[in-house]
Amino acid sequence: VVVVGADAAGMSAASQAKRLAGDDVEIVAFERQQWTSYSACGIPYWIAGDVDGPDALIARTPEEHRRRGIDVRLGHEVVALDVEAHTVTVRDLGSGDVQAHTYDELVLGTGATPIRPNLPGIDAEGVLGVQTIDDGAAVLSWLDEVDARTSGPARAVVVGGGYIGVEMAEAMVRHGLDVTLVDLAAQPMSTLDPDMGVLVREAMEGFGCRVVTGAAVDAIETKDGRAFGVVAGERAFPADVVVLGLGVRPATQLAADAGLWLGDSGGLVTNDRQQVVDADGALVPGVWAGGDCVESFDRLTGGRIHVALGTHANKQGRVIGTNLGGGEATFPGIVRTAISKVCDLEIARTGLREKDASRAGIDVVTATVESTTRAGYFPGAEPMTVKALAERGSGRLLGVQIVGRAGSAKRIDAAALALWNGMSARDLAMSDLAYAPPFSPVWDPVQIAARKAADLAESP
Amino acid sequence: VVVVGADAAGMSAASQAKRLAGDDVEIVAFERQQWTSYSACGIPYWIAGDVDGPDALIARTPEEHRRRGIDVRLGHEVVALDVEAHTVTVRDLGSGDVQAHTYDELVLGTGATPIRPNLPGIDAEGVLGVQTIDDGAAVLSWLDEVDARTSGPARAVVVGGGYIGVEMAEAMVRHGLDVTLVDLAAQPMSTLDPDMGVLVREAMEGFGCRVVTGAAVDAIETKDGRAFGVVAGERAFPADVVVLGLGVRPATQLAADAGLWLGDSGGLVTNDRQQVVDADGALVPGVWAGGDCVESFDRLTGGRIHVALGTHANKQGRVIGTNLGGGEATFPGIVRTAISKVCDLEIARTGLREKDASRAGIDVVTATVESTTRAGYFPGAEPMTVKALAERGSGRLLGVQIVGRAGSAKRIDAAALALWNGMSARDLAMSDLAYAPPFSPVWDPVQIAARKAADLAESP
Repeated sequence: VVVVGADAAGMSAASQAKRLAGDDVEIVAFERQQWTSYSACGIPYWIAGDVDGPDALIARTPEEHRRRGIDVRLGHEVVALDVEAHTVTVRDLGSGDVQAHTYDELVLGTGATPIRPNLPGIDAEGVLGVQTIDDGAAVLSWLDEVDARTSGPARAVVVGGGYIGVEMAEAMVRHGLDVTLVDLAAQPMSTLDPDMGVLVREAMEGFGCRVVTGAAVDAIETKDGRAFGVVAGERAFPADVVVLGLGVRPATQLAADAGLWLGDSGGLVTNDRQQVVDADGALVPGVWAGGDCVESFDRLTGGRIHVALGTHANKQGRVIGTNLGGGEATFPGIVRTAISKVCDLEIARTGLREKDASRAGIDVVTATVESTTRAGYFPGAEPMTVKALAERGSGRLLGVQIVGRAGSAKRIDAAALALWNGMSARDLAMSDLAYAPPFSPVWDPVQIAARKAADLAESP
Repeated sequence: VVVVGADAAGMSAASQAKRLAGDDVEIVAFERQQWTSYSACGIPYWIAGDVDGPDALIARTPEEHRRRGIDVRLGHEVVALDVEAHTVTVRDLGSGDVQAHTYDELVLGTGATPIRPNLPGIDAEGVLGVQTIDDGAAVLSWLDEVDARTSGPARAVVVGGGYIGVEMAEAMVRHGLDVTLVDLAAQPMSTLDPDMGVLVREAMEGFGCRVVTGAAVDAIETKDGRAFGVVAGERAFPADVVVLGLGVRPATQLAADAGLWLGDSGGLVTNDRQQVVDADGALVPGVWAGGDCVESFDRLTGGRIHVALGTHANKQGRVIGTNLGGGEATFPGIVRTAISKVCDLEIARTGLREKDASRAGIDVVTATVESTTRAGYFPGAEPMTVKALAERGSGRLLGVQIVGRAGSAKRIDAAALALWNGMSARDLAMSDLAYAPPFSPVWDPVQIAARKAADLAESP
């Protein structure tokens, strides 16, 4: 077994195959960088100073993998792939040597790369993406450099208001920078509907971050090859550092060059055993893929969608490893659940947003409620806002969004499982969720929102 | 509409009927005590001093109900019921007057009463149950009285180690009493399997509470009509106050006297619209019931079970009110979800315990894991233990139990919805629950336990 990319998906696959098959399977994992099995999602928290890094972010070191019998080769980049000949071509980035290796089974876990739009100045020094541990280290060292160079607070512009964007904006504020977030959407966190995103905006502004929305970035201004500003429409925002938070795209150039079929998102397409398939649905023999480089089955629409999350990567990797190790496993898909934290605000969503539902031609009703994380009278009850979406008429639950203080967001799991099982908003509202005063009002806030959405959906 | 008992179920019904039908419905609610719509579940926290009471525990006062057009009569006890003649006989506890009232529709929300076993001394002064606001006030005034009477810490014995028992034991410790919990079961909190209950015991002992298990109480020792000790087997435990935490039973004497059929638990039996039925399943015309006085449909077994929880009472009451108000609603049942907090420990369960599964003839596998509430490297990650039960062979999820620190227990909701939908442990393990480092390890602890249970269930 040859594994390309020794992070969540690849090494979950390798570990699980080894666990099941032991010496019956020989595994070589090639990794361009110097790290294995790290938490990419933890990198913004490392930069913010919440977490000591990078060591704490490493779930399993190369040595630990080797002790389990997996031959991990760091600083080795797979530069070509031949799925007919079952070979990979590998460059040792240290020595420059190039060698071919054959495989019986190939696991592609090449991950994702931050989106870098083709803008003037995008390649200037000080324009930073955040995806790998090396990226995180680069941001921190750039911050040191900027700090030494500037008098007064340095200025950061974060481009893009998604998860990484808002997390990085908070991290920069906490480093004492003067921070502007520039986003194309009407509100930051456009994974939420705008009426929920505005709550995120308010929290960020309250935290001292300038938020500029509805603004398309036209260029990065540079001086001596360094970023010194961001131009968006008529406005210019001075910047000592520019952080790209525009999301990621699947890192599938290697696969594309090998002639593998990519979906609309640029991700690899697999069956539910995580075997790579072509445009006709036929297996590409011996090729498996999982994690940020693949599209996942979307249970909401029956289509495929690219969602780069460590939890999917781990599960898909484990599915691959189980199948390689002689077992039988499938990945059952996703319902677009995501959770994040910015400043003191917890943020979660699952299912469809209003615009997703409209695009799909669904007649949607929405209900938004303000409630509390505990019984209103109980100490530590925190405010939370829940929005529920349901289909008019049928009452089918379509999605739920939560923005609130401590103890709010993980409640999205109830909504996620309701969607997973195709429940109606009414059924979620009436289901047996846990109640006691230190944990919830007598109707859980998610259930209040679902109930109101059900009432609206059912009303003539 | 006549409502008997103006608490969660009765007043949810009344409010919802009024909301839907307005002046088309006339509602009189008779309540023996002086309170309406209060949080019985909050009473231990009031006694412990977490919550200012009793006002904070009142969700809606009699005046608020009256302003909404509901005729609430406090201090009025319904002493007889004639379901043929459609009348209730009501005693005004103030004046002693007795009057008959007719009804078109009757809502029974008579609640539950603490179990008082028929033991010598059980009726002595200082043997206290905890169910109503009056009970709570009685405990607090007794504690004052005892405090004035004793030198050094007063001694409390709590009989029974269920939710109320452990909550009351904690409350007594926080009042500075010397507390012994005496329980018949092998471990306190026998709503959990004993291997999880032991974690509760350890937390209570760490908090300074003596825990005596496997001990049946034989008698309350009395002196001058006052409790001064508890005898269990060969042992005697001195006590200035004895708190009964043996659970509750449905308060259905009125219904029984009227010839209504009661289930095995002593609770009223209803259809899914909350209409009272007889032993043949035939409707008792015009009689509705909900809350602690009824049995609920148990989705796990298809049978009926008595679970006294405010959240069920509110939902059942709302179902009654919707049906009375011209709408159409059903209560879909329960899956035995419950959650509690003792000392710093959060406790939750849903579904079947090992002994429930065995009794039902199910071949059960179990997996217990120790994990953390957040990514292990994230600040504030707290330990949590999760036990998952699945059926051998089929892999059907049977139950989940959680004991852990802050942020653990409400995760039971994911398991509750998995049971609600009849999911397998594998499907729960692979479902799309929310992940980000401040909220969860990359595999949610509930999913790790479910995964291990699935592995065991599927192994030959």
